[in-house]
Amino acid sequence: MTRPPDEGVYRRTTEVEQQESGVLGNTKHPDGEPWAWPESTWRRIVERARAGRNLKPATWPDRAACAVALSFDADHDTIPLRDGLESPMMISQGQYGSRRGVPRIRAILERESIPATFFYPAVSALLYPSEVRALSGDGHEIGIHSWIHERNNLLPYEVERELSFRSADTLSKIAGTAPVGMRTASWDFSPNTLRIIREMGLLYDSSLMADDDPYELLEDGEPTGIVELPPEWIRDDAVYFNMARFEGLRPYTPPSAVEEIFKAEFDGAFDEGGLFVLTMHPDVIGHRSRIGILQRLITHMKARGSCWFATHAQVAEWCRQRAAPA
Amino acid sequence: MTRPPDEGVYRRTTEVEQQESGVLGNTKHPDGEPWAWPESTWRRIVERARAGRNLKPATWPDRAACAVALSFDADHDTIPLRDGLESPMMISQGQYGSRRGVPRIRAILERESIPATFFYPAVSALLYPSEVRALSGDGHEIGIHSWIHERNNLLPYEVERELSFRSADTLSKIAGTAPVGMRTASWDFSPNTLRIIREMGLLYDSSLMADDDPYELLEDGEPTGIVELPPEWIRDDAVYFNMARFEGLRPYTPPSAVEEIFKAEFDGAFDEGGLFVLTMHPDVIGHRSRIGILQRLITHMKARGSCWFATHAQVAEWCRQRAAPA
Amino acid sequence: MTRPPDEGVYRRTTEVEQQESGVLGNTKHPDGEPWAWPESTWRRIVERARAGRNLKPATWPDRAACAVALSFDADHDTIPLRDGLESPMMISQGQYGSRRGVPRIRAILERESIPATFFYPAVSALLYPSEVRALSGDGHEIGIHSWIHERNNLLPYEVERELSFRSADTLSKIAGTAPVGMRTASWDFSPNTLRIIREMGLLYDSSLMADDDPYELLEDGEPTGIVELPPEWIRDDAVYFNMARFEGLRPYTPPSAVEEIFKAEFDGAFDEGGLFVLTMHPDVIGHRSRIGILQRLITHMKARGSCWFATHAQVAEWCRQRAAPA
Amino acid sequence: MTRPPDEGVYRRTTEVEQQESGVLGNTKHPDGEPWAWPESTWRRIVERARAGRNLKPATWPDRAACAVALSFDADHDTIPLRDGLESPMMISQGQYGSRRGVPRIRAILERESIPATFFYPAVSALLYPSEVRALSGDGHEIGIHSWIHERNNLLPYEVERELSFRSADTLSKIAGTAPVGMRTASWDFSPNTLRIIREMGLLYDSSLMADDDPYELLEDGEPTGIVELPPEWIRDDAVYFNMARFEGLRPYTPPSAVEEIFKAEFDGAFDEGGLFVLTMHPDVIGHRSRIGILQRLITHMKARGSCWFATHAQVAEWCRQRAAPA
Repeated sequence: MTRPPDEGVYRRTTEVEQQESGVLGNTKHPDGEPWAWPESTWRRIVERARAGRNLKPATWPDRAACAVALSFDADHDTIPLRDGLESPMMISQGQYGSRRGVPRIRAILERESIPATFFYPAVSALLYPSEVRALSGDGHEIGIHSWIHERNNLLPYEVERELSFRSADTLSKIAGTAPVGMRTASWDFSPNTLRIIREMGLLYDSSLMADDDPYELLEDGEPTGIVELPPEWIRDDAVYFNMARFEGLRPYTPPSAVEEIFKAEFDGAFDEGGLFVLTMHPDVIGHRSRIGILQRLITHMKARGSCWFATHAQVAEWCRQRAAPA
Repeated sequence: MTRPPDEGVYRRTTEVEQQESGVLGNTKHPDGEPWAWPESTWRRIVERARAGRNLKPATWPDRAACAVALSFDADHDTIPLRDGLESPMMISQGQYGSRRGVPRIRAILERESIPATFFYPAVSALLYPSEVRALSGDGHEIGIHSWIHERNNLLPYEVERELSFRSADTLSKIAGTAPVGMRTASWDFSPNTLRIIREMGLLYDSSLMADDDPYELLEDGEPTGIVELPPEWIRDDAVYFNMARFEGLRPYTPPSAVEEIFKAEFDGAFDEGGLFVLTMHPDVIGHRSRIGILQRLITHMKARGSCWFATHAQVAEWCRQRAAPA
Repeated sequence: MTRPPDEGVYRRTTEVEQQESGVLGNTKHPDGEPWAWPESTWRRIVERARAGRNLKPATWPDRAACAVALSFDADHDTIPLRDGLESPMMISQGQYGSRRGVPRIRAILERESIPATFFYPAVSALLYPSEVRALSGDGHEIGIHSWIHERNNLLPYEVERELSFRSADTLSKIAGTAPVGMRTASWDFSPNTLRIIREMGLLYDSSLMADDDPYELLEDGEPTGIVELPPEWIRDDAVYFNMARFEGLRPYTPPSAVEEIFKAEFDGAFDEGGLFVLTMHPDVIGHRSRIGILQRLITHMKARGSCWFATHAQVAEWCRQRAAPA
Repeated sequence: MTRPPDEGVYRRTTEVEQQESGVLGNTKHPDGEPWAWPESTWRRIVERARAGRNLKPATWPDRAACAVALSFDADHDTIPLRDGLESPMMISQGQYGSRRGVPRIRAILERESIPATFFYPAVSALLYPSEVRALSGDGHEIGIHSWIHERNNLLPYEVERELSFRSADTLSKIAGTAPVGMRTASWDFSPNTLRIIREMGLLYDSSLMADDDPYELLEDGEPTGIVELPPEWIRDDAVYFNMARFEGLRPYTPPSAVEEIFKAEFDGAFDEGGLFVLTMHPDVIGHRSRIGILQRLITHMKARGSCWFATHAQVAEWCRQRAAPA
């Protein structure tokens, strides 16, 4: 951890993000064109937050066949807010997440006796504090998910760090317990995020995708003890159901096909005795035509055999304790 | 209603819309970067047109299991016109809505004895006045849907207000009765739209999406008495079937999958005893390969049990009268 | 036909096309913002090439239940060429249309004894003249489809006119008979196209979409005698199967779903006793995983009852002769 | 091969690529607007790397009904790297390809006794050299796939040539044998690529798409002896499953539909006695919900009859030896 925070990368990344929807490949990198980079450049980039030890344990609690960690990113109104958009229509779609999505999800989890993890942007928690308290009271975990769904790769180190600490503090005050894990907003894990997670003393992250099963994060080749619980766009409801008027994103995939994908991802985890991490959003999965996916998925999982349904924190703790010595 | 009209927001929103298809998140907001906003900024934005009291009534007329409000946005030629596009091909797609779409829809509604709401841009009504009169004569409701499908968020308060009043007046003259409800074009409800709706003395709006069932709109926390009948992109045929040559929008979802989605949304409404609002467009759903979706959906709804098929105005009036005191 | 050619529109349309994939709605129109246009502006725009008399005949030849006009736009290499793209990979995709697509299509049409219409950009016909002659020799119709798949809305009247006449002349020389109908490339029918079609003395156009069945085109309200055989993006294989690396266009719709759509469009035509126009491309439908759509569609059509399979010219001629007096 | 390398085309192509996601058709070509080009211009462009003799042999080894060439483009971390993107999330998606994708693929190929071809960007091979050696040791072929997944059309001749030779040399050193074939990254075969392939003395290319079966490449009309084994976007897993946050690319097509497409492409090859080339990516097909596509496809192929499963090099060699004299 002697590496200084990476200040130089954020400005360039901003430009890349800005160009990504238009022109690819012509942003100037300080080391020149990628095909002309020295080996040290690409090795440095890939080593920043690398997958290290596989932390899949020999057994799960109660000899369960696999582990299932359901998560809900309760972004609510923060998606338009983070872009400075004031459209009442977009804001109302966020409020739907709290008004309709969360109650439907909560009812299913209660009926099925399944604990889950709810990742809250701090602003979302401040808009709906009683919702956070009720979920926490139900035994669900509350995790960190940025301040206002900001994009970490657009921020310098100090700003990302301050927002991360403030977000954790805000959730602690509202939920009554300190969060132990982070999911970056839009999985926008910056070159500085791992350093900040270590400074915060967190147990786990859930943003990087180098495996299906838990692994230990390496920072510049050094083991960190941080557990990664890998998400994937494939196991994210928003990928298939988002609607953006001007970007060509549409809910083109029918719910039955999304159900097929989620079940196939779970079946792989079950067959391998591994971990199944699923990311949903109350304002996405919570709709009448989609909430059945969650219900039918749970029914399918229970029908296949014994699954350990647990919060992200519980899975991370179990895996960390059983990790073989490095 | 002492808040002055929001003049400052429209210019910025214009820029955001212009950037939305290209670069997100780098438009300057007068209060600075969203992650640096004071709490007062994001609270002001979310409170402009918030969902208040749930207006779902204890019972529907004739003890129906749920309410069904079918609507058709009869945009016809106005989609290319509002963008200043003069392509005869695009114009012909709009004429199809009147020449083929409306007759097919009207025949189904008559055969099934279902009243519906047709929202007309005023220019569309001026192009096809006999169509408007015939639908009105059939007992269908004619609702406000902008002047020429303009984008409200690109307009200052005075222009949006003048076009809204003029549109209502135009429909009154053509249909013979004054419209009582509005659906904003593209659900582009601006920060000034609620204020204008109150000035017009309308019964309801159908543009905001904070719930599935009817609710009362709050303006800056104050109850307005305006009934919101929530639409959703999910329940809109154009989302799945639109075709734009240069934007990557294509009719990727097969009709059978759209039917699956609409039925699942209805089934949720039926099971909950709630409201099902469906938005269609004569030039979209009216095609030979799609009109069957509407017919099969109606057959499915009637087979499930007693549904109250009503216009938006009838639903809004029923819910307003039965609302518990605030 | 006293209206002067529309020279003013092409420059603006160019700008609109250029902005369409980026920013919508902010191109300056000489008459100002569309919501502020005088009525004369939008009436003039919609009247340029309007649908007039319905030309669906009382009966089809041999008392067939409906008419089927299959067409193939043999663009081959012209798609990358028209954009000035020299990528050998893209060029090879065009050659596939001639090397693999046309032979597979020709074999099916011969086996099923179905005449069809092949629309050729002149450059494509010049690259593959023996293919044009062979198809013509099989009894298929050769129709006009631009010079090099240029976009008409980017051209001034004189250029569009010269390219149209030269294209017709080129096809005449190669195929040995003069073409009698036109399909504009990308259905990019400009404000001047109808005037040019009249000057060329053509029988029909197949670019505008105001109906499913044949209709007479009106120019500024005046009957032209030109028969429109309406295509639609819905009945176009490329919409579902195109692949563009940088635009987000992908073949997201599986072949079985495209087959569902085409069959449903045909079934509507059969049930109504109308016309079914289908547009395909040899380099799109000709692939091993897609050619079966055409075969199964033909099998389905023949199984439903007696269909009149005819070229576009045959359908247009039949309808024109049977049209009721204007 | 007396034509000088094409230096002039790369600058213009760069501009076209940059505009492709935004505005099409307005890049200046040195010969002017494509509709005004002299015939020599479009003939020169189409002749650069044209399909010549069909190299489909009279019989396959052991009288197999068809040939199957499975390939895996092991891009791993190079996709974000080639664009200068340093996002740890994107990098982790690449590492997944090595950590999870390759082992699953290797297990299936071993169990089914199928040799395949793995195309490696040199940087990917340098990041995972033991993986390359293990695959080579299993009997799989290692093929050239650029240095760092750079876009050839953005490079001048000398740079493309130097990177191509260096990539081949790097793979030789790691795998222990010299590669004999190339697949350009993103099938971005430049106007100079064929010349470079000839200079390298390669046996085959797998980037161009003018046929389903093998063919000989012509350079400016001259036979080259180079065997083309044609890929297609249709037979590429990434087309359907890619996910790009800002471009509107999403995994909209469910795995069962991708399986339908791949099977239909294979069935065509089987029925014709031809070649089936399939392109996959370890970080795409390797996921739990997708790897079953590969397994079920192999089961389907073996069930249909005797297939010759071979590396690209084996197929190219077989076809070259059996080619009729030119």
